[in-house]
Amino acid sequence: MSDWWSAPCAIPDASVEAAARARQEQLTKPPGSLGRLEDVAVRLAALQHTPEPSVERIWISIFAGDHGVAGEGVSAFPQSVTGDMLRNFAGGGAAISVLARALDASLEVVDLGTVNDPGEIPGVRRAIIAPSTANFCRQAALTDTQLRAALRAGAESVAAAERAGAQLFIGGEMGIANTTAASALGSALLDAPPGALGGAGTGLDDAGIAHKTAVIARALDLHAGDHDAMEWLRRLGGFELTALVGAFLAAAQAGLPVLIDGFIATSAALAAVRVQPACRDWMLFAHRSREQGHAQVLDALDAEPLLDLGMRLGEGSGAATAVPLLRLACALHNGMATFAEAGVSAA
Amino acid sequence: MSDWWSAPCAIPDASVEAAARARQEQLTKPPGSLGRLEDVAVRLAALQHTPEPSVERIWISIFAGDHGVAGEGVSAFPQSVTGDMLRNFAGGGAAISVLARALDASLEVVDLGTVNDPGEIPGVRRAIIAPSTANFCRQAALTDTQLRAALRAGAESVAAAERAGAQLFIGGEMGIANTTAASALGSALLDAPPGALGGAGTGLDDAGIAHKTAVIARALDLHAGDHDAMEWLRRLGGFELTALVGAFLAAAQAGLPVLIDGFIATSAALAAVRVQPACRDWMLFAHRSREQGHAQVLDALDAEPLLDLGMRLGEGSGAATAVPLLRLACALHNGMATFAEAGVSAA
Repeated sequence: MSDWWSAPCAIPDASVEAAARARQEQLTKPPGSLGRLEDVAVRLAALQHTPEPSVERIWISIFAGDHGVAGEGVSAFPQSVTGDMLRNFAGGGAAISVLARALDASLEVVDLGTVNDPGEIPGVRRAIIAPSTANFCRQAALTDTQLRAALRAGAESVAAAERAGAQLFIGGEMGIANTTAASALGSALLDAPPGALGGAGTGLDDAGIAHKTAVIARALDLHAGDHDAMEWLRRLGGFELTALVGAFLAAAQAGLPVLIDGFIATSAALAAVRVQPACRDWMLFAHRSREQGHAQVLDALDAEPLLDLGMRLGEGSGAATAVPLLRLACALHNGMATFAEAGVSAA
Repeated sequence: MSDWWSAPCAIPDASVEAAARARQEQLTKPPGSLGRLEDVAVRLAALQHTPEPSVERIWISIFAGDHGVAGEGVSAFPQSVTGDMLRNFAGGGAAISVLARALDASLEVVDLGTVNDPGEIPGVRRAIIAPSTANFCRQAALTDTQLRAALRAGAESVAAAERAGAQLFIGGEMGIANTTAASALGSALLDAPPGALGGAGTGLDDAGIAHKTAVIARALDLHAGDHDAMEWLRRLGGFELTALVGAFLAAAQAGLPVLIDGFIATSAALAAVRVQPACRDWMLFAHRSREQGHAQVLDALDAEPLLDLGMRLGEGSGAATAVPLLRLACALHNGMATFAEAGVSAA
């Protein structure tokens, strides 16, 4: 228990939560009629320790890293795309870049190591661990040193978000083959069969999915054992997956709410919760992805996401898409009149 | 076919739609990975006849009117609330007022007649038809003259939206007992039993819902016959329901996309589509309400809404909540780089 990620998480404010819930009952609408928007506002009030929650200042960190398992031919895209996309994130052309602009959010791009190294790019934080993880069909994906470096990279992003006064943290990811890593990790953590969480990723056909499942099965055989979540993460994870785990744990320690994106980010959230269950309190869940394994990981976290739009891009794009719902929930909570203020008869 | 609402609807642009779909395939993401957001952008492109769709300029009209059937005790709230809420809409304290401000949308409040007449209110357009519809358990809710006046009121709001340069029209409603009217109308149009579409409305308990169902059953018995949609609307509708029908038909004629709200608005959409099927092309569906009958009316329209947040407030609040999704869909469509532009390898 001496590692930084074992330090205790912050505690949501139950009394603010109760007061926020009471306020919702007084607003000029039938009780409960704003549905999940009421829950979101009340929850954010508890997490932010304030009767007037706000998510105007959003911080998005995108972690990119390559995967040794890509060598097994598990992706529809070539591995060079990870490096290319770093340039696209910083250049403003990627989905998350467009979304961040539209939301007036801070976007940090973190290069944890790619085979096709783009070098220094303005707007990209270089935190290179290695060009790639190892192929987890043959050995552990990360060394212990790499695991710690990746966890630290995630925590550093949270620290930067804190310094910027962020009210909400979003962690996104990019890494060719990372649905294979997330599927393997999720299968290990949930003790599920190798095919249970394997989906189409960037666009595999049925034969491709069958091959990917076989690759995951080989890895689960190789690494079979009674490992804790951190050790599973080291054996089957990736640099970006691990950075997300570090970020989610650090955010919970700092008392910064996080909005969880899709399959990869939710798999990281599951690992983080297995490392320290109390960090679950700080997680809001944005969307249900079309990626096949996402529903099971969400279920394991008892998470009911806000959106279900058939998205499956990653990059934090699903989380970013849900941000306006949080903002509107806050606007309604803070801005609506009570029955007494408006002179309207309650039921 | 001589009435204004029988004039033909505008026609979406199929060639712009195809070009927009082709563009989506070129953007730096796996094809289809933005899910419903891709469909929304492509659809808006077709409706707006432009490769760069936009919904920055939103017009929201809230139609309020009282219902004679409220005298049967079918609502959890007193009838005076309809008039009180007009003041709250204009005063900025209602949910839709807060949402309109947050979205920088134009909000028009239209008073079609309430029992508790609030008189002239700054920001409320008075288009008084009568203090209330008649109790449809005893006679038709509207006279033919009232029906035409309410349809016209809706069309006038669309004309105002057009003059303001609106790119999207939202119609909301307020009227104590109007889920009873919408349930009766929906049952008649779908030939469904009286309990099939009756739900809790503003907050009925099981006994209240049973009573409401019995009231709807009496009305369906009284009005039984082979009526067309307009005649069902006259017999079982309300001023605000009818204004929404007029608005949706006028918007389709003008080529102005509409974003449909919850159970009441969707029931009006169903009536509009029964009057003129081609108006369906101009409808986007915002959310699935918790009101019990909504799902069936959506199914009848082959509509798959964007959100499912357990909302059941009306006022256009669900539609307003979905606006940011449309805006983000447009931003992604217009702002993302193509694979060629970004120098990223496609699959």
